[in-house]
Amino acid sequence: MHIGLIGLGKMGNNMRARLERNGIQVTGYDTNPDISDVASLADLVAALPAPRTVWAMVPAGDITDSVVNELAGLLEAGDLLIDGGNSKFTEDFKHAELLAKTGVDFMDAGVSGGVWGLDNGYGLMVGGSAEQVERVMPVFDALRPEGPRDEGFVHVGEVGAGHYAKMVHNGIEYALMQAYAEGYELLDTRKDIIKDVTGTFKAWQRGTVVRSWLLDLLVRALEQDPEFEHIEGYVQDSGEGRWTVEEGLNNAVPLPTISASIFARFVSRQEDSPAMKAVAALRNQFGGHAVKAVD
Amino acid sequence: MHIGLIGLGKMGNNMRARLERNGIQVTGYDTNPDISDVASLADLVAALPAPRTVWAMVPAGDITDSVVNELAGLLEAGDLLIDGGNSKFTEDFKHAELLAKTGVDFMDAGVSGGVWGLDNGYGLMVGGSAEQVERVMPVFDALRPEGPRDEGFVHVGEVGAGHYAKMVHNGIEYALMQAYAEGYELLDTRKDIIKDVTGTFKAWQRGTVVRSWLLDLLVRALEQDPEFEHIEGYVQDSGEGRWTVEEGLNNAVPLPTISASIFARFVSRQEDSPAMKAVAALRNQFGGHAVKAVD
Amino acid sequence: MHIGLIGLGKMGNNMRARLERNGIQVTGYDTNPDISDVASLADLVAALPAPRTVWAMVPAGDITDSVVNELAGLLEAGDLLIDGGNSKFTEDFKHAELLAKTGVDFMDAGVSGGVWGLDNGYGLMVGGSAEQVERVMPVFDALRPEGPRDEGFVHVGEVGAGHYAKMVHNGIEYALMQAYAEGYELLDTRKDIIKDVTGTFKAWQRGTVVRSWLLDLLVRALEQDPEFEHIEGYVQDSGEGRWTVEEGLNNAVPLPTISASIFARFVSRQEDSPAMKAVAALRNQFGGHAVKAVD
Amino acid sequence: MHIGLIGLGKMGNNMRARLERNGIQVTGYDTNPDISDVASLADLVAALPAPRTVWAMVPAGDITDSVVNELAGLLEAGDLLIDGGNSKFTEDFKHAELLAKTGVDFMDAGVSGGVWGLDNGYGLMVGGSAEQVERVMPVFDALRPEGPRDEGFVHVGEVGAGHYAKMVHNGIEYALMQAYAEGYELLDTRKDIIKDVTGTFKAWQRGTVVRSWLLDLLVRALEQDPEFEHIEGYVQDSGEGRWTVEEGLNNAVPLPTISASIFARFVSRQEDSPAMKAVAALRNQFGGHAVKAVD
Repeated sequence: MHIGLIGLGKMGNNMRARLERNGIQVTGYDTNPDISDVASLADLVAALPAPRTVWAMVPAGDITDSVVNELAGLLEAGDLLIDGGNSKFTEDFKHAELLAKTGVDFMDAGVSGGVWGLDNGYGLMVGGSAEQVERVMPVFDALRPEGPRDEGFVHVGEVGAGHYAKMVHNGIEYALMQAYAEGYELLDTRKDIIKDVTGTFKAWQRGTVVRSWLLDLLVRALEQDPEFEHIEGYVQDSGEGRWTVEEGLNNAVPLPTISASIFARFVSRQEDSPAMKAVAALRNQFGGHAVKAVD
Repeated sequence: MHIGLIGLGKMGNNMRARLERNGIQVTGYDTNPDISDVASLADLVAALPAPRTVWAMVPAGDITDSVVNELAGLLEAGDLLIDGGNSKFTEDFKHAELLAKTGVDFMDAGVSGGVWGLDNGYGLMVGGSAEQVERVMPVFDALRPEGPRDEGFVHVGEVGAGHYAKMVHNGIEYALMQAYAEGYELLDTRKDIIKDVTGTFKAWQRGTVVRSWLLDLLVRALEQDPEFEHIEGYVQDSGEGRWTVEEGLNNAVPLPTISASIFARFVSRQEDSPAMKAVAALRNQFGGHAVKAVD
Repeated sequence: MHIGLIGLGKMGNNMRARLERNGIQVTGYDTNPDISDVASLADLVAALPAPRTVWAMVPAGDITDSVVNELAGLLEAGDLLIDGGNSKFTEDFKHAELLAKTGVDFMDAGVSGGVWGLDNGYGLMVGGSAEQVERVMPVFDALRPEGPRDEGFVHVGEVGAGHYAKMVHNGIEYALMQAYAEGYELLDTRKDIIKDVTGTFKAWQRGTVVRSWLLDLLVRALEQDPEFEHIEGYVQDSGEGRWTVEEGLNNAVPLPTISASIFARFVSRQEDSPAMKAVAALRNQFGGHAVKAVD
Repeated sequence: MHIGLIGLGKMGNNMRARLERNGIQVTGYDTNPDISDVASLADLVAALPAPRTVWAMVPAGDITDSVVNELAGLLEAGDLLIDGGNSKFTEDFKHAELLAKTGVDFMDAGVSGGVWGLDNGYGLMVGGSAEQVERVMPVFDALRPEGPRDEGFVHVGEVGAGHYAKMVHNGIEYALMQAYAEGYELLDTRKDIIKDVTGTFKAWQRGTVVRSWLLDLLVRALEQDPEFEHIEGYVQDSGEGRWTVEEGLNNAVPLPTISASIFARFVSRQEDSPAMKAVAALRNQFGGHAVKAVD
């Protein structure tokens, strides 16, 4: 099988390697000419055998949107485009509709695994028709982890369902990370009692209820920098966490831990908190409590 | 009526003024000899007519504990001690038991109102027997706000009940302040839309559902420093908020907003967050996401 | 001044009464012919002197949208429509643009006060140009509470700003209510200590830091039904709370108490919680903890 | 090695089996004579070679307390008692002090793994001196999972440290479970999009960031009862989660997700929520919003 792959960044490049390692021929396109196999999207389309299969692995939002729009003018009836980036599921509905006008098929694929996917395989959640899934299965099988297919791949539903599942996956991921982080902070704060914080996390890797891949990574990080001396408590967030909470709001689903973990990230990026300034000002007003004045 | 007042700080001094203004004779004791009427607790006790009424207005914890212990050796059967500070209700049980050994009565009084109490009167929540309450009522009437007694004073229950009610009052207060503060931050962040943040809060003072005394104080603070330029978002907490959540835990009562407001204060005081360092480290481990390195 | 008022429900009817009481002539339209002055929106427009001022007070969403669309075909250049309902601020942008095509002015007004507005006046937050605000000021002055104008009325910014401020107002309101409710539950749970729950809330009305209009209403509710025996813990939410959190997410503003109060409402409406079924199932899996089986 | 084991319930019995399987001789005592090897604690002590090693595996609180107190009168200098139950770490300080009076050693051990521990091994976190740890190491090695010792066992610190680490472990566990549960509820609510909820969780088992043992158990539970039709969303909590939050409060460590998961359990057990009754009553007061009346 021979596919086109758009986006040869950190994720795309690793995926290309895994695909090729598993017998899929890949022609890659990237805006960076140094790493691109072809000069343009038009050249990419020209280089692929019809009916074409193209996998887009570019940042969600404007960039994905512009790639899809350009491809809508290049691909032909019977071709198939897969958006493997982190697009919002509502974008998939729009993109599928656009491409359907010229008979081009569209699928969405949520891809998990980060930089470890090259060796471990990528967890895949895909949306589309049964026929589309069957057609792309060799690609999915090349990307997903070893072992039973249904433990690393799922056909979630129609177009949009793959990204929906990935969105929720990431929402859960945020809260899992926050849970371990809270426990870490408490243990770290009571080093008068806990003489071996890293060792405690390390010992949770086998037998305990909290063992997980994230725990393994936390142990790895602690072994590299046991006091996190070389890292700031400043945490970005991508869209999926926010969209998960937005979906919770739209569907009256309570998401207290997922929202708490996103809010914690927001706070982590603030130099000072306007809200806490207001609280400090209020305390000062009613109680005459001293405030910390800005110098 | 003639009472003793222990603690002539910000709160105690204002209370003394309001008591005297309303016809209660006060002999005051403070560890600061410049403002104390008498040289010692023993002198205070000696200066009061028996049966004595003594109001302690000192910091909760060790200081209150030591005052009560010293008074236990000075007061006589039939005397009455009122703890008007912010003691934990469980301390009241202990203090009442200690004093009962020598026939000394004990009451607890939660006092709200801050620096405004001198002029507005103090909201009072008291614990003790009906007889005790009746005996001290002239003092309560002098301290409480004008208007119907039951809108500014309550006999909550037996010893400890007054401080319990005050504890919950403060727990609620924390969450109310946080609620306004969150709204402030959102309005302040969208100054592209909200052209008059202070004016918006000011306009909520009459007619709206959110009008309150805290809102009035927030308007006052914003009019003094509209951008909170001279204040840091660093907020202390006294014990009551924590005890409220502890009681929620002990009694299986969910307190999501009260706990959230206390946690927000904890975060406000951290230079960097160990928990968010852990999250940043985790993201770096699985996604190769750049971390903000400490310089 | 003579204006048209669309929507004569609970809110609209009270507003009409207050407007007329304060010298504004009102022609009202409602889809219910029994209470409507005119038979149609076209008749309403015909009944008003040009340039017309029309105030829409109908449910947000589809109904407001259809009213605005119909009026777009009826009103003339120089007329002015005010949306006083609880529309999302993004709707205002759309409606202003639509009406601008035919030279019709558009303003948005957030209105707070509920059923008490008739007598207390309505807190008003409006969006539009300075000229528009000046033109409608007699109406705003008739609706707003007695006292200084800027304590019950604010010109927040351009179109959309009024509804934005009202949205945040309601978000805050949710969290304030939740705060009192959590305190109530804790006091109610410890009736072994708190012998007079209603009396405790009543005593907070004067002098304390937590005094507010919502507290007054809670006291009123407790006096009518001290154990809330005739009420279920089932709470609806209108859109503003959700939109507030959505805006927090969009702007990276942490809103822990506001989101917690919305989630509490979601839970209150569930017969059983899918999430807690999953937790119960998990505990059963690892610990052999008994689950409560559905009969 | 020959030890005494007190408590032959679900956990104790499995631990006994694993100990014996790995060459440790066990004399067991239980209050249930049908399963007990000896008739009393005195008989247990008599049956063990001095210096004795006794492992208590009984419910935390009063029962553990009474077992320790009885053993204090039976064990002799040089004997060693290990509390392997879920005691609060502050209890350990008390128990160690009591036993030290007669020269009896005391250690605490947090044990994780539930009903799976028999086959998987138990994650162990222990508190005590280096000498004590060395002395009991054959027992720890018999109980812990296969593989490197430090991935399933940790000597956390002095007495109390083992239970402290286990407490935090369980606090984290609560939040992890809640995180998956929230994701489950959102997916389950959007079954219009997610055609295969169980399959989605199943596919997260390999390659994804959220893979974990708890996820494996959730898949197992969903495969047994895909709609959770036979389970109620009613979730108990043991002490550790509460103590974790209490420790967070005592040490100014923010724990938003851990506290949220405990509060969710509290709510799950309420027939109706007093807090939400109060919110419903408030909405009714200001807005005339209909309330759901109790029939």
